Amino acid sequence: MTGNPADRAGAILEIDLAGIAANWRLLARRVEPAGCAAVVKADAYGLGAPLVAPALAAAGCRRFFVATIDEGIALRRVLPESAEIAVLNGLLPRCADDFIEFGLVPVLNDPGQIADWQCAASRYGKGPAILQIDTGMARLGLTVRDFDRLADGLRQPDPIRWRTLISHLACSDEPRHPLNHIQLERFAAARRHLPHLPASLAASSGIFLGTEFHLDLVRPGAALYGVNPQPGKPNPMHQIVRLKGRILQIREVDRGQSVGYGASHVMAAPGRLATVAVGYADGWLRSVSQRGSGRIGGRRVPLLGRVSMDLIVFDVSGVDPALARPGGFIELLHENYGVDSAAADAGTIGYEILTALGRRYHRVYRGASGQC
Amino acid sequence: MTGNPADRAGAILEIDLAGIAANWRLLARRVEPAGCAAVVKADAYGLGAPLVAPALAAAGCRRFFVATIDEGIALRRVLPESAEIAVLNGLLPRCADDFIEFGLVPVLNDPGQIADWQCAASRYGKGPAILQIDTGMARLGLTVRDFDRLADGLRQPDPIRWRTLISHLACSDEPRHPLNHIQLERFAAARRHLPHLPASLAASSGIFLGTEFHLDLVRPGAALYGVNPQPGKPNPMHQIVRLKGRILQIREVDRGQSVGYGASHVMAAPGRLATVAVGYADGWLRSVSQRGSGRIGGRRVPLLGRVSMDLIVFDVSGVDPALARPGGFIELLHENYGVDSAAADAGTIGYEILTALGRRYHRVYRGASGQC
Repeated sequence: MTGNPADRAGAILEIDLAGIAANWRLLARRVEPAGCAAVVKADAYGLGAPLVAPALAAAGCRRFFVATIDEGIALRRVLPESAEIAVLNGLLPRCADDFIEFGLVPVLNDPGQIADWQCAASRYGKGPAILQIDTGMARLGLTVRDFDRLADGLRQPDPIRWRTLISHLACSDEPRHPLNHIQLERFAAARRHLPHLPASLAASSGIFLGTEFHLDLVRPGAALYGVNPQPGKPNPMHQIVRLKGRILQIREVDRGQSVGYGASHVMAAPGRLATVAVGYADGWLRSVSQRGSGRIGGRRVPLLGRVSMDLIVFDVSGVDPALARPGGFIELLHENYGVDSAAADAGTIGYEILTALGRRYHRVYRGASGQC
Repeated sequence: MTGNPADRAGAILEIDLAGIAANWRLLARRVEPAGCAAVVKADAYGLGAPLVAPALAAAGCRRFFVATIDEGIALRRVLPESAEIAVLNGLLPRCADDFIEFGLVPVLNDPGQIADWQCAASRYGKGPAILQIDTGMARLGLTVRDFDRLADGLRQPDPIRWRTLISHLACSDEPRHPLNHIQLERFAAARRHLPHLPASLAASSGIFLGTEFHLDLVRPGAALYGVNPQPGKPNPMHQIVRLKGRILQIREVDRGQSVGYGASHVMAAPGRLATVAVGYADGWLRSVSQRGSGRIGGRRVPLLGRVSMDLIVFDVSGVDPALARPGGFIELLHENYGVDSAAADAGTIGYEILTALGRRYHRVYRGASGQC
């Protein structure tokens, strides 16, 4: 290859691994003496689980949650054997052998999964598992009814080695939502059936609902990656991602010039436009059309017109042409406009901004020991 | 690996390569005697350029458009040497050598790029290029002002081997939008300066604006992949993708049960829910929350509550429990609910549904010679 991949890239995504580790330590200290796991599902919320998870392990994290078996298999390759890797989406039919082979811990969500895993555990002579009960999401986990029916049996000698009892909060980002305490009470009632089992209820926002939600283990995800776990309050987490998009072209335009698909923006005055090599195919959601912005030379520049598949256009009329030039960059995510700001402009949540981050970006990892 | 990857997958994405080839042939016949290229940027709109492009080449396509240099490099590895691969985002600084090394054709969009490519072409003794002029998008391409200034020079002997003159329509999906004919006229005026050059203006929807838009070459993208190029009219294209999501869990719920984050859906009656292993981290956009639907056993089942990162929940109360069972599937994209339908529910366009299609899906390619 003759050239430098960074020179060819339409955008540079910087990911601060040291910042992720610092966020984990901040939460881990906050919840002591409860333990602190890390949720690295969806490729560590789009940031790259194969680099993120080892950085968290180096910071002291020993328990990891992924969504799918394949994510667990990929993680097993990069984490020490002592690290627990739990698969939230549970035990699919015909997949017990994969869990055993790769040393993964299924989160068991229904009676059928429990029965299947009991078989596998008997066959292999081992079978660690996490038991999830549903307390208000109606998504994954045993119903209270099923749990009450099964709980006595679970207290008997069982080939399954139960590690933890977990549930998940539906409204933890709304501290005053009545469901938070209702779920806490339902979970407490379930725990009384299995008092010997460590218990875990809180994810990122749940940690900030108060110590009564911490129990034995918390499971932050989004907060590790910079999403504010307390919407509407100052963000205690470090920003983790910075994104800058390459300027492909600068053009002078007249008043009345239409911009982008549908000619949805029309220039009210002459100006100068910068076309940047980022689009909705890079996860820069089309819903930020006519609402987003970037930054160059410390100035906010508005996004004009619709987001294209591979391109967005900014109004750089007020920017020094020495800065706004082809090959230069416009910052799209930075310390004053993080994933939550982008989410507000896109009408979504920071989580989706993260998981949508594009595969065409040139990725630079900062703060990884020996990796950059 | 002990198990079958399809058994582990949370969803199966089927991509009909024969259908893509058929769509290309349908358009190619429609525009004859004009030529027909294929736009395979953004990884063939998310469908996998390394498999899609060879299928198109086998169907007779000889000219391919990508967005970025890296996409061009990846494509060069899988296409015959005779195939032209053009890079729409143009010539970035310090990247001319890459274009030469990998036999890529830059789309030159501004005077600086033309000057750089003239240097490279002189140095290497070769330098094919496409010239783009802007006629109404204000996105990429020479301004009419710059073009008028440069056109005389471009007619002189030039180290650049000019292949095609192109421009791009802003409103081709709105046949009655006045900008369509304004752009056609501006393009015609430019072509008079370089009458020897083949010309190309229309992409998918532009093809359906009438033969006067076909010129020498059309460049469909979205229509190849099943997006309706004529919104509001019957879709002449084959549907290309089918998506089915795995049921992880079935639960019986009571009246009053809240579903998903924010408890945004509350059951008005008792029912049965299916939790499916697809979420916004798979590109099933969060904006379909409370609006989307799936299909199982021929029945439409509504999506309840918010889309989670890795999960969605459907109301399967009316479905035979023998069908709606853990390990089974709910169809998310099918012949009666294609990418345009999903886009309508998500408040976007079919293009974004395609490019967002998830990386965790197990992909099955149909109709590739020797490939499935």
